[in-house]
Amino acid sequence: MWVYEKKMEYPVKIKKSNPKLAKLIITQYGGPDGELGASLRYLSQRFTMLTPQAIATLNDIGTEELAHLEMIGAICHQLTADATPQQMQEAGMDAYYVDHGMGIYPQSAGGVPWNAIGIQSKGDPITDLYEDMAAEQKARSTYEYLLDLIDDPDVADPIKFLREREVVHFQRFGEALNYVRDYMDGKRIFYKK
Amino acid sequence: MWVYEKKMEYPVKIKKSNPKLAKLIITQYGGPDGELGASLRYLSQRFTMLTPQAIATLNDIGTEELAHLEMIGAICHQLTADATPQQMQEAGMDAYYVDHGMGIYPQSAGGVPWNAIGIQSKGDPITDLYEDMAAEQKARSTYEYLLDLIDDPDVADPIKFLREREVVHFQRFGEALNYVRDYMDGKRIFYKK
Amino acid sequence: MWVYEKKMEYPVKIKKSNPKLAKLIITQYGGPDGELGASLRYLSQRFTMLTPQAIATLNDIGTEELAHLEMIGAICHQLTADATPQQMQEAGMDAYYVDHGMGIYPQSAGGVPWNAIGIQSKGDPITDLYEDMAAEQKARSTYEYLLDLIDDPDVADPIKFLREREVVHFQRFGEALNYVRDYMDGKRIFYKK
Amino acid sequence: MWVYEKKMEYPVKIKKSNPKLAKLIITQYGGPDGELGASLRYLSQRFTMLTPQAIATLNDIGTEELAHLEMIGAICHQLTADATPQQMQEAGMDAYYVDHGMGIYPQSAGGVPWNAIGIQSKGDPITDLYEDMAAEQKARSTYEYLLDLIDDPDVADPIKFLREREVVHFQRFGEALNYVRDYMDGKRIFYKK
Amino acid sequence: MWVYEKKMEYPVKIKKSNPKLAKLIITQYGGPDGELGASLRYLSQRFTMLTPQAIATLNDIGTEELAHLEMIGAICHQLTADATPQQMQEAGMDAYYVDHGMGIYPQSAGGVPWNAIGIQSKGDPITDLYEDMAAEQKARSTYEYLLDLIDDPDVADPIKFLREREVVHFQRFGEALNYVRDYMDGKRIFYKK
Amino acid sequence: MWVYEKKMEYPVKIKKSNPKLAKLIITQYGGPDGELGASLRYLSQRFTMLTPQAIATLNDIGTEELAHLEMIGAICHQLTADATPQQMQEAGMDAYYVDHGMGIYPQSAGGVPWNAIGIQSKGDPITDLYEDMAAEQKARSTYEYLLDLIDDPDVADPIKFLREREVVHFQRFGEALNYVRDYMDGKRIFYKK
Repeated sequence: MWVYEKKMEYPVKIKKSNPKLAKLIITQYGGPDGELGASLRYLSQRFTMLTPQAIATLNDIGTEELAHLEMIGAICHQLTADATPQQMQEAGMDAYYVDHGMGIYPQSAGGVPWNAIGIQSKGDPITDLYEDMAAEQKARSTYEYLLDLIDDPDVADPIKFLREREVVHFQRFGEALNYVRDYMDGKRIFYKK
Repeated sequence: MWVYEKKMEYPVKIKKSNPKLAKLIITQYGGPDGELGASLRYLSQRFTMLTPQAIATLNDIGTEELAHLEMIGAICHQLTADATPQQMQEAGMDAYYVDHGMGIYPQSAGGVPWNAIGIQSKGDPITDLYEDMAAEQKARSTYEYLLDLIDDPDVADPIKFLREREVVHFQRFGEALNYVRDYMDGKRIFYKK
Repeated sequence: MWVYEKKMEYPVKIKKSNPKLAKLIITQYGGPDGELGASLRYLSQRFTMLTPQAIATLNDIGTEELAHLEMIGAICHQLTADATPQQMQEAGMDAYYVDHGMGIYPQSAGGVPWNAIGIQSKGDPITDLYEDMAAEQKARSTYEYLLDLIDDPDVADPIKFLREREVVHFQRFGEALNYVRDYMDGKRIFYKK
Repeated sequence: MWVYEKKMEYPVKIKKSNPKLAKLIITQYGGPDGELGASLRYLSQRFTMLTPQAIATLNDIGTEELAHLEMIGAICHQLTADATPQQMQEAGMDAYYVDHGMGIYPQSAGGVPWNAIGIQSKGDPITDLYEDMAAEQKARSTYEYLLDLIDDPDVADPIKFLREREVVHFQRFGEALNYVRDYMDGKRIFYKK
Repeated sequence: MWVYEKKMEYPVKIKKSNPKLAKLIITQYGGPDGELGASLRYLSQRFTMLTPQAIATLNDIGTEELAHLEMIGAICHQLTADATPQQMQEAGMDAYYVDHGMGIYPQSAGGVPWNAIGIQSKGDPITDLYEDMAAEQKARSTYEYLLDLIDDPDVADPIKFLREREVVHFQRFGEALNYVRDYMDGKRIFYKK
Repeated sequence: MWVYEKKMEYPVKIKKSNPKLAKLIITQYGGPDGELGASLRYLSQRFTMLTPQAIATLNDIGTEELAHLEMIGAICHQLTADATPQQMQEAGMDAYYVDHGMGIYPQSAGGVPWNAIGIQSKGDPITDLYEDMAAEQKARSTYEYLLDLIDDPDVADPIKFLREREVVHFQRFGEALNYVRDYMDGKRIFYKK
């Protein structure tokens, strides 16, 4: 179970309303390569992961991604909270406003609601860890594309932090993969035939 | 952010493998009225909720639903972990086995991957709280339907606990709705016209 | 069965082409909280509703929502019928034009085709009526968000009418809920355990 | 707008509970080639259809498909209303029971919730009428496949009626196509280039 | 099986970057009436088609649609390859850029990822051929709508070629339908009752 | 463009009807980790891949996956072609039969129509190649799960061939990744920042 701690993993303090950015950044809330998918993928896979270390890695990172989900939600909220409907419209967020008001909703930048088809939990430790490494690369690319379009340092700063975390996660999944492989070889277990 | 505490909200200790039940119970992991949808709905809505009490209610219950998601995952895992592929097939879980092995995957009993279209975060406090009360009723019904088909007390016990929690949540959302309404009346604010 | 009567429930007479508004209003045709979902939800639930009054309420409102669906379709059609492809493009409806021409298609403002995952018919009378009350609140919010962005009185007028109807429906579902609860208590029936 | 008439287009009087059949027949409620898709397709297309006759055809058939939707709902309801949860399970409807109880829900036989991606309203009269003829053929095939698996004459009888109506609709759309083509040729209008 | 031949079916040589057009044309890559759906529909249906000629028609056209998919991909790639992120943003492709970078991804103009719900393979030769004729009409309309909005002759030229091919395919499916009908009549086979 | 060669990449000659297996194997036609997704993923990504070798790898493997798609379609077709509707029902394929007859339709074993949300084409060469390696691992696992449930050597034989090809593809993507990394380092290009 989880206990909520009333602080962000990294501070989010945006001074300037900018719905246009919120429209893009929401993709890391509920887009195909965002934090919701990451967290749910890892927290689901841990039930069938092979070694205690790899299980702990999934659990740690899955929990951290929840904190990232919160940060992204806070960023989008701060970017829109003071906007008028007309400012939402000028920023191209009129469709979003009509469908969700100023609410934070898990969708991609392109407007697609989050769908579990975008993740896999395959019950095979090697496969799942490759899935996770790919997920981290996709998240990294998304953060980099976002940074290409963000000019407010208050927004760029936490996004850079999140991008760096994905690189660290990628490395940790790589290490977990090596441990799991060694374990399977050492035991002369050939998982799934 | 959240801190993981290495225990379940309520113990899950199932002694008998039973993939047939896992096939149904998975719906509370990733089905239309399950714990993932509940948690994400509340944790998303809190960004635009109106009063501190109502925000706290969404945060508390959203966090507790994460613990429920974990319990449901553990139930499904314990019901399938020792099953052979042939036992999965006899239990009607051969399709699931081919698509996800013994992995825990967020889908409905009917096999539909979780889709955010099933939840709403509308940015209107009254609307969101009605959405939440309806969600709790739908979760309650689902647990009751599950109990109609569960004959193993080790499984029924945590499911009954979860069912009762939904009733409590329903009541808490009702209270939050009253507070929010009073607040809006007291302030003579007519939210959204 | 239904008999078509060749008039609208409330007149729709828009003089000025305005595809930009159509792009938003279409969400009440096929969006997550729109008239299609409302109608289908109620007309589906009535098969398992408990008391004759509640069944009649579902049938009446479900039928009225069909009339609202027609009104919304007519509004969107009148707002686009005289537009050129270039005007569609200037209004940000070029993607819609390429995918559906000037046709009326059931999608959200955000472009998501209607999906039944957004509704529930749970077979439990209490649950279904809460689902319905939440649906009416969501529709109300959507109409209010639309009104924030509509400046043409010819369009605002029928939208206001529709908004008011949702409030009435909400109240009628509340009454149905009370009747159903009384019935279940009086009969000392505890529906589903 | 539509007025509800309290009778079915064709009587549905099923004496024997049979959830196994309901599981299949529900596909004509909310499956890819079912009555919901048919009705919504035609009622949506009529806004941009070219000639008064063709508009009337779409309106008439779209309205009739609503009556068919009701008949299919009634068939599925009568086949399940008296079933116990255990009988639902024996009939392979346990997943449905957990997700929707005895409620009538718009999904395919395969369990996929209805999705508007399965229909098109293209704003081109020739295209739309071909789409409609294809829809009627798909509905016909579905009814024929259902009849291969139905052994209860009480169920087969209304299904045969519905199958025949699809053939009639197919012919009427063919006639509408001819009228529209003549109209376009006669006017020497080349619709869309 | 297929052998790749390193040339396009028709040359694609676009000199001017224009992400705004790419945003629309991508719909023929992965939109509801695009080349992916066409190809997969025909190549899937051929397994159960009735006569050798009709099977060959499905195989030929399904293979040609793969070449069209490649052409559309090349068009979208050439229209975006030299664009900067800022130019993507100015063209309204910022959401696409964040979700997919400059990658070619199978979605509609409206941003909906391709979904097999948009095609049918019904196992009934008459039904499948009507489905195919409707598909070709829908593709034709889409190309015509695109041509309404394309002003660069380098882009319009291959699009016109593709539009013409759809008309030819439509005719070939009409001929196949006649052959299949004759075959069924001649054999006095009444397929599916 | 592609030229069809009238032979399979590997022979498929199944003597015994077995719809129960077809129900599972179809997942490699249109399931989340199947051949359609693989082929479309690679053929889409090649437009933005970095080096000629890596582009060729994507093109070769994407083309080969089309041949695998054909093999899987042929396997499912041969397993069902001679089945009666009643045999389909006994094999648990009655829902499939009602929705698609004996037609080959791109869905998962669990009945979910193929959805492009399951693939990514991110426009970043490193990310795309990790996505591809993960895809090959997921396909491998799926074939292994299928082999756990296949007892007919006529079916197991081509499935084993396909499984082995996925392992080879995985290795080739790993090599491509190394080349691309070297190229980026050698050029002292830091792709995307």
